[in-house]
Amino acid sequence: MPERNVEARALQPDARARAKSVSRPQRNTRPPVGVGVLNEHLGYFMRRAQVWIFNDFIRTLSEIGIRPAQYSVLVVIGENPGLSQSDLARTLGIERARLVHMLDLLQRRGLTERQPAPGARRSHALFLTREGQKMLKRAKVLAAEHEAHLTERLGAANRKLMLDLMREVWQGRN
Amino acid sequence: MPERNVEARALQPDARARAKSVSRPQRNTRPPVGVGVLNEHLGYFMRRAQVWIFNDFIRTLSEIGIRPAQYSVLVVIGENPGLSQSDLARTLGIERARLVHMLDLLQRRGLTERQPAPGARRSHALFLTREGQKMLKRAKVLAAEHEAHLTERLGAANRKLMLDLMREVWQGRN
Repeated sequence: MPERNVEARALQPDARARAKSVSRPQRNTRPPVGVGVLNEHLGYFMRRAQVWIFNDFIRTLSEIGIRPAQYSVLVVIGENPGLSQSDLARTLGIERARLVHMLDLLQRRGLTERQPAPGARRSHALFLTREGQKMLKRAKVLAAEHEAHLTERLGAANRKLMLDLMREVWQGRN
Repeated sequence: MPERNVEARALQPDARARAKSVSRPQRNTRPPVGVGVLNEHLGYFMRRAQVWIFNDFIRTLSEIGIRPAQYSVLVVIGENPGLSQSDLARTLGIERARLVHMLDLLQRRGLTERQPAPGARRSHALFLTREGQKMLKRAKVLAAEHEAHLTERLGAANRKLMLDLMREVWQGRN
């Protein structure tokens, strides 16, 4: 997500205020740049929205250093102790190699552990450690704060409508 | 977007049909994996949706090898001939280094060109070549096909509602 910094900077209210107060005569006389047919593409807005949302999530959870994909992995393991790696990958639509890498990292941080799955030689059962459970609890509090930022930005009714629409269309489609 | 392959495979109708017809007794007896609080996070669904949409876009435009970010760059240059790199970066929320890389690539393919901007020593004015204009025309036709896939998947009314909501919230927020 290389756009992170640009987006983050541009959308912070104080940065915007600062930008306004700086005199930039060349910029100010230019007409706004039109995006043409992009205005008709759902994917364009979906990507802008997703980047904005992820940036806010990353900022809001920066004190515990948990990124969006890591959060979703912790939540799903916490919800399904003993889950296999392949079921986790399938549930979240994460490519196997990337998931293995992520689990290595979470394990090194002492948050998750793999145990041999009884009866399935090549499979692992995934668990949160006690530390992982504490971390997830904290992460959920911060993630709720993040969600409150979205409510501020979108309005409660719009956020709910968007969530319902998206859930209806994308839930269980993995 | 490393999840691409997983998602693409999982969501192709023939792949789903195949998966259903294969006998997997261990899988079938397991309850579906719950995603817990992820169900309440707009960002979770936004990311799933965005990955699905981008995969479809990439597939639909694969014959001309134009990816979503490249498409948006071609559209905005086509719409604003002579645009500067920094205005383009700002408009699309693309980090400068990534944009430079992308423009190098499009230029090597003979689709865009940089010309010195009169009066601004370190700035470039961006243009589509004739080849780039032809490519953009073709890309727009295929992108409309992609959008038709979204209408199929979401229903026309839902697609429109989502687009309107997202446009209202994210337009001009770069």
